[in-house]
Amino acid sequence: MFVLVNLKAYPCDPIEVAEAAAEVADDTGVRIAVAPQAAHLDRVAETGVETWAQHVSPVEYGSHTGSTLAEAAADAGAVGTLLNHSENRLKLADIDASLRAAERADLETVVCANNPRQIAAAAALDPDAVAVEPPELIGTGTPVSKADPDIVTDSVDAAASVSDVPVLCGAGISTGEDLDAAAGLGAEGVLLASGVAKADDPKAALEALVDPVV
Amino acid sequence: MFVLVNLKAYPCDPIEVAEAAAEVADDTGVRIAVAPQAAHLDRVAETGVETWAQHVSPVEYGSHTGSTLAEAAADAGAVGTLLNHSENRLKLADIDASLRAAERADLETVVCANNPRQIAAAAALDPDAVAVEPPELIGTGTPVSKADPDIVTDSVDAAASVSDVPVLCGAGISTGEDLDAAAGLGAEGVLLASGVAKADDPKAALEALVDPVV
Amino acid sequence: MFVLVNLKAYPCDPIEVAEAAAEVADDTGVRIAVAPQAAHLDRVAETGVETWAQHVSPVEYGSHTGSTLAEAAADAGAVGTLLNHSENRLKLADIDASLRAAERADLETVVCANNPRQIAAAAALDPDAVAVEPPELIGTGTPVSKADPDIVTDSVDAAASVSDVPVLCGAGISTGEDLDAAAGLGAEGVLLASGVAKADDPKAALEALVDPVV
Amino acid sequence: MFVLVNLKAYPCDPIEVAEAAAEVADDTGVRIAVAPQAAHLDRVAETGVETWAQHVSPVEYGSHTGSTLAEAAADAGAVGTLLNHSENRLKLADIDASLRAAERADLETVVCANNPRQIAAAAALDPDAVAVEPPELIGTGTPVSKADPDIVTDSVDAAASVSDVPVLCGAGISTGEDLDAAAGLGAEGVLLASGVAKADDPKAALEALVDPVV
Repeated sequence: MFVLVNLKAYPCDPIEVAEAAAEVADDTGVRIAVAPQAAHLDRVAETGVETWAQHVSPVEYGSHTGSTLAEAAADAGAVGTLLNHSENRLKLADIDASLRAAERADLETVVCANNPRQIAAAAALDPDAVAVEPPELIGTGTPVSKADPDIVTDSVDAAASVSDVPVLCGAGISTGEDLDAAAGLGAEGVLLASGVAKADDPKAALEALVDPVV
Repeated sequence: MFVLVNLKAYPCDPIEVAEAAAEVADDTGVRIAVAPQAAHLDRVAETGVETWAQHVSPVEYGSHTGSTLAEAAADAGAVGTLLNHSENRLKLADIDASLRAAERADLETVVCANNPRQIAAAAALDPDAVAVEPPELIGTGTPVSKADPDIVTDSVDAAASVSDVPVLCGAGISTGEDLDAAAGLGAEGVLLASGVAKADDPKAALEALVDPVV
Repeated sequence: MFVLVNLKAYPCDPIEVAEAAAEVADDTGVRIAVAPQAAHLDRVAETGVETWAQHVSPVEYGSHTGSTLAEAAADAGAVGTLLNHSENRLKLADIDASLRAAERADLETVVCANNPRQIAAAAALDPDAVAVEPPELIGTGTPVSKADPDIVTDSVDAAASVSDVPVLCGAGISTGEDLDAAAGLGAEGVLLASGVAKADDPKAALEALVDPVV
Repeated sequence: MFVLVNLKAYPCDPIEVAEAAAEVADDTGVRIAVAPQAAHLDRVAETGVETWAQHVSPVEYGSHTGSTLAEAAADAGAVGTLLNHSENRLKLADIDASLRAAERADLETVVCANNPRQIAAAAALDPDAVAVEPPELIGTGTPVSKADPDIVTDSVDAAASVSDVPVLCGAGISTGEDLDAAAGLGAEGVLLASGVAKADDPKAALEALVDPVV
């Protein structure tokens, strides 16, 4: 299982979460990555944790003020990027262009989508993985694996019908039980945010999360 | 072959083009539709021509000021809608929602896209048809069937790999030869705009266009 | 007082509301306009009511698929347009370009904004009027004149500091008392929507609304 | 004069430009700041140069994946931010919200705009400065001070009519002569990009630029 912790614009200490993630990954062998604000990529990467961007812009080098250039993210230590998160929806053509930008910069990619139909569409654009996150469950604490397990299995089927891209499961994931349920539904990873980023003890939260797969 | 004439925001007389299209469709049996500005749907539909919207918004009935509600377009006489035209790119989630809106209002749908990869993604969202329009050729007068025939055949293959959705061919189509070439590459229709909308004699332009398939 | 009834994408009968508005305007001498979906402009204008667009695009004649061309709206009978409604926020440069588009087509303009600072900014772009609509009150039934009277008087002052553009008052307006309160705070008109569009009897709702100024 | 060097998404070495800017600022006493990609803020700030963000998002702490949080930019060393650059146009309401976000994080602000009318609108939102950049001149090498001096003086007048906010001059600035001309037209600073970022010798380019005001 791949655990991707999205720090969004939370008022957390990104270094504390990064160090916790690096330690838990080392201790357990579970792959854990942290996606901070672009301005924090550098310092998060210095902790040694696998570092991801939350987004890269659909642009190449050039006149693009205010963009997040894939090469700049990579330069600051990112090895992957989320794209089309429900809080940052992109145009279809821009998901494609952002994927090509990420490829140029050797960033691994996860494209988020709402439902199995959009998952198939995202898979057709040839990312490294897709993540199904029903928007109505994000931030609720109700895991998609419990609230709507069919959406996960249907997404796994939809992705498989287009290519062999792995499916991550987002929205409402916070406990080891959620992670286990996601794995049972065919997900090869989880996307989570507040469950770790807002935890009093991020390290303990991560340890409890990955416990079922250790 | 299906011929869809997009009037964009051209300074043409939409009624003149609509009447020409209705006559040529009647005379030749070729399916021809006209997509005017939303504010002109009513009057274009009154000519008896098959009338399409250029876009419908990804919304249901509700508080959506400035939207183009699918039901209002249908009410004014539209029987289909373009979506995601290169001049009106949509978010992936919004293409999906606009398709569902169009379904609710019984509008047929054509989703535009730039390249075979995006064509496959669009096809995965279950429209009635997709249209490949390389943005660099739009408005050039150089038909995609000549400038880049592989993009058409690859789009037909990409769409077929996902579903059995027909592919239209846009960008630079204006003559009967272009239409013929598009058909030869596997396209089941063409999307065109200035070649008819800006013609001195739209009826003659349409007659010449459909001549090879009559 | 100017009463502008925004039909949004409501499932109302636009002709019924238009006819009611035309009658009440005739009977009372109060200026009342109706802003339907673009696809309904034609039929609403045919009722004789003052007809407004809900939005026009920041474009001139040309290749703008899915736009709402100011000239097309005017052609269909619109004599004015809302811009930058909180459900259709525009870029600063696009408000400017849409205002110039509306001018070209002889459409009167009302630019909406959230707060006095944005009202001053909108006024600087030289519209015919501005409308203050705190987004948190839209659709609540709580009139801004009651919930936050200072925002109205501050908006009137802010607009006056930049130019002599009149201020309309939106958000939560539905009764004659609300209209009266808005006038008392310096507003020269009201923007309303559900209070009329969703009323069982739109004519009665409008009569009650304008009663204090008849 | 304030010199703000925007590195956009150029393939330059941000550290080299930052070090050059820091040295020239030290040597000449001219205020010079550098605005790199968000992912480079940290390392640019470490050079000691005055460091600006190219953009901050109109958000507070919270669930905003892919945003550029003002606090994160400040945390990485930014002391100011551009907003509404012509390559990153914002909604009017979002310029306002981004300005408030920047204030919260103690970032100085410069809001860009196309023309005197938009400059007045931007000034009404209470930034620390505004910058006039006619989009047709950006990247041309033709300075606005030469191509269209009236747009600069009209912008200075427009800003003054709303508040006492200083006006910077962008678009096509690259030489000392351009800077001098901008100052002569009432600008209190210049915004430039390729003239320094793409120079073979950024330090020499900056020295030549500021020479007239040393």
